[in-house]
Amino acid sequence: MEELSRNRAFGGEQGVYRHRSLETGTEMSFSLFVPPHAPGAKLPVVWYLSGLTCTHANVTEKGEYRRACAELGLIFVAPDTSPRGDGVADDPAGAYDFGLGAGFYVDATEPPFAAHYRMWSYVTQELPELVAAHFPADMDRQSIMGHSMGGHGALTIGLSFPDRFKAVSAFAPIVAPGQVPWGRKALTGYLGEDEAAWRRHDAVALIGDGARVPELLVDQGDADQFLEEQLQPERLASACADAGIPLILRMQPGYDHSYYFISSFMEDHLRWHAERL
Amino acid sequence: MEELSRNRAFGGEQGVYRHRSLETGTEMSFSLFVPPHAPGAKLPVVWYLSGLTCTHANVTEKGEYRRACAELGLIFVAPDTSPRGDGVADDPAGAYDFGLGAGFYVDATEPPFAAHYRMWSYVTQELPELVAAHFPADMDRQSIMGHSMGGHGALTIGLSFPDRFKAVSAFAPIVAPGQVPWGRKALTGYLGEDEAAWRRHDAVALIGDGARVPELLVDQGDADQFLEEQLQPERLASACADAGIPLILRMQPGYDHSYYFISSFMEDHLRWHAERL
Repeated sequence: MEELSRNRAFGGEQGVYRHRSLETGTEMSFSLFVPPHAPGAKLPVVWYLSGLTCTHANVTEKGEYRRACAELGLIFVAPDTSPRGDGVADDPAGAYDFGLGAGFYVDATEPPFAAHYRMWSYVTQELPELVAAHFPADMDRQSIMGHSMGGHGALTIGLSFPDRFKAVSAFAPIVAPGQVPWGRKALTGYLGEDEAAWRRHDAVALIGDGARVPELLVDQGDADQFLEEQLQPERLASACADAGIPLILRMQPGYDHSYYFISSFMEDHLRWHAERL
Repeated sequence: MEELSRNRAFGGEQGVYRHRSLETGTEMSFSLFVPPHAPGAKLPVVWYLSGLTCTHANVTEKGEYRRACAELGLIFVAPDTSPRGDGVADDPAGAYDFGLGAGFYVDATEPPFAAHYRMWSYVTQELPELVAAHFPADMDRQSIMGHSMGGHGALTIGLSFPDRFKAVSAFAPIVAPGQVPWGRKALTGYLGEDEAAWRRHDAVALIGDGARVPELLVDQGDADQFLEEQLQPERLASACADAGIPLILRMQPGYDHSYYFISSFMEDHLRWHAERL
């Protein structure tokens, strides 16, 4: 693992790192903030999964999480959103919503994407092992959050590992990718035409199939340009109501899909996570 | 004045605007945050001047000022750092420390820069009039801060208008441009070889010549890569001691010159300003 940069911030250290991933077969970069802490302390870990077009850098620069993480004693990890580099397949038309920057947190089974697009295993297995080995992380205290496509990732991973993640939350998540254009394109491209294979990568379908978490927190701007076509949080509300999962769904008036929205509610989410860690 | 973007954030509105400047003879962009406020209220205004290579965008994205400005009820304005566009002269070698992105908050007198590089008059006269006309700003309650070259701007402007600015602070400022390479290059290029003309654009010289403010706050990282050659805060400490200006100079251990440093202490500065506004 190579350290690309490390900067003191809010009494802690914001780092950016690169390593060779066995899962993706590429170099992968991620950012990780270590808050100020006593020597030898092991700290809880918050995973943040980013949305379409992002790398680790967007939330690292614009997410405004360091102040709260420093106060609450939280490690904050932001992975990339896809494999990148020579030989990594992209959307044939270069579209922003599939391929590079749009891994959708699945292990692809369709060629040519199956070769490198293994973001599910990367985020749930390989990168946690790397974090545990190199940072003062208490892997018995993890939580997960994300934005948009990364909200989809946080919900599906959180629902799939309910014992691992003590809190699961999302900003403007794609809650039912199997039912909306972004998700149908991605799941078809990565997993093929058989929609049965999509269900474990669709939060609403997962809940319908019996997956459970103790509770969920979701913030959603009501001026979000993707609200009606791609996000449809009412599908999650309905699934949670049917399943008896307490969902805090906050429609935030006037907020859009941007980091101005995320940063405005980041501290709320981190405090909610910290209470459960 | 044209609105380029406006996003809800922390209950307020982060805007980016463009207008035709009579001073610079170019289109100029700036960002301005309006915190949540009662209808009809007039709010104090904090000016933030950016450093070399920056536009309004850097602090807008990375400065982490909105949370505190929303809580404290402060308008936050971030101008650009130079004129830009067709016909605007740049450093002959394209260097980062002179010309575009490096206006040094002076009105240039040397050709070819005198034609457009009028950042002093732009920041102290034209832009304040625009802000007063278009936003709920109480121009009787203004303060100013800045980073690096913008710290130089904040100090020299604050010292030159002590009645206008109720608080003056800086992050890692160039305190004596006449004595360091960045400043000597810029002041020679914009103002010519006669160093007497530089003194009103040099905070230490201004204080030596009798300029006064009630107090100053400066944060400086002790791991700042520019500390010894370009910044030399001890010169400001000495000038303030001689002049009887109370200076809070905080050397921050482990911090560098980046926005990770600025954002870590932004809230402190805003609270210090708010107490004086």
